[in-house]
Amino acid sequence: MRPSRSGRRPGRSGAREAILEAARARFARNGFDQTSIRAIAGDAGVDPALVHHYFGTKRQLFAAMAQLPIDPEKPLSTILEAPIEQLGATILREVVEVWDSPAGPGLVAVLRSMLAGGDMSMARMFILEVVLERVRLRIATPEDDARARIGLVASQMMGILVARKLVGVEPIASMPGPELVAAVGPTLQRYLTGPVEFG
Amino acid sequence: MRPSRSGRRPGRSGAREAILEAARARFARNGFDQTSIRAIAGDAGVDPALVHHYFGTKRQLFAAMAQLPIDPEKPLSTILEAPIEQLGATILREVVEVWDSPAGPGLVAVLRSMLAGGDMSMARMFILEVVLERVRLRIATPEDDARARIGLVASQMMGILVARKLVGVEPIASMPGPELVAAVGPTLQRYLTGPVEFG
Repeated sequence: MRPSRSGRRPGRSGAREAILEAARARFARNGFDQTSIRAIAGDAGVDPALVHHYFGTKRQLFAAMAQLPIDPEKPLSTILEAPIEQLGATILREVVEVWDSPAGPGLVAVLRSMLAGGDMSMARMFILEVVLERVRLRIATPEDDARARIGLVASQMMGILVARKLVGVEPIASMPGPELVAAVGPTLQRYLTGPVEFG
Repeated sequence: MRPSRSGRRPGRSGAREAILEAARARFARNGFDQTSIRAIAGDAGVDPALVHHYFGTKRQLFAAMAQLPIDPEKPLSTILEAPIEQLGATILREVVEVWDSPAGPGLVAVLRSMLAGGDMSMARMFILEVVLERVRLRIATPEDDARARIGLVASQMMGILVARKLVGVEPIASMPGPELVAAVGPTLQRYLTGPVEFG
């Protein structure tokens, strides 16, 4: 369903751009959850099927809009299918793998320009609503909506990426992925499903 | 020993600037540990006592050179005096207190411009050599130089600051400091003195 870049035909780029612009406006105004492909298509004046044809899922459309050089579907489905007691290690492994991949430098560039620009709403939306919302729903209980747990996970993940990719804190920056997963996985697992006291 | 800003006299700003410039060059070339006040004074053509008079300790000189709107001595001495089993909570409490203080927005601005500029060597040096090196020496053993432990601490601390101050991840961003310390302190304590396996 997802078109390759070479599948773009001249004359259609107008529709593509209109979809991206409508997506940008909708996501910014209403957030990820409250935005539908149908609504974006309506704003852009195209059929929803064309949005799916060009961009795939809503998450993939978000990634394209945010100019992320990655497809979030594969790591996300791995995370969502992981046994709940391996969720911490799995999140870390999948995210580190993406950042250590050839797409890594592009992600660093996007992150750096977001941080420099000061508008973090897209980064926040991507981390919390696109990536971690379905993880949250897996661990939420009637007593605990797990928002604080997910926020702690986000903080440790962002810290690993900043230490490893932006600041270059050794030996974290050059540590093989599996060693990092072994050292930090238990932290994420505690944040997700372990005892966390808030004072 | 530390002069207030109003204590600067006209005519002396030349020496002050020369000291800052010499410090910047020395720290960048040799790192924090291998740079002495004496060497900086020599480069600037002033007496070492004048460097101490203007800036205080080497750490305070570093903070002034990096244009950090804080004095690292108070939080650092609190951290260094904390019982080793309370080190994690103490580091978190002291650092969060500084970032939540009136100096916080200035620190965010410095961090943002460092991240945007892409030269993270000063940030790295401040975190690892100025703040955490003496913590490392407290926990190092003949078998473990504790560099990886300190790197993990740095990653979680940076992640908390990015989540709380740059990205605005809720509920981390508006959580009272003591709740954050209760939730994240055990992570830092494990990284410092607990079991950490690297695969």
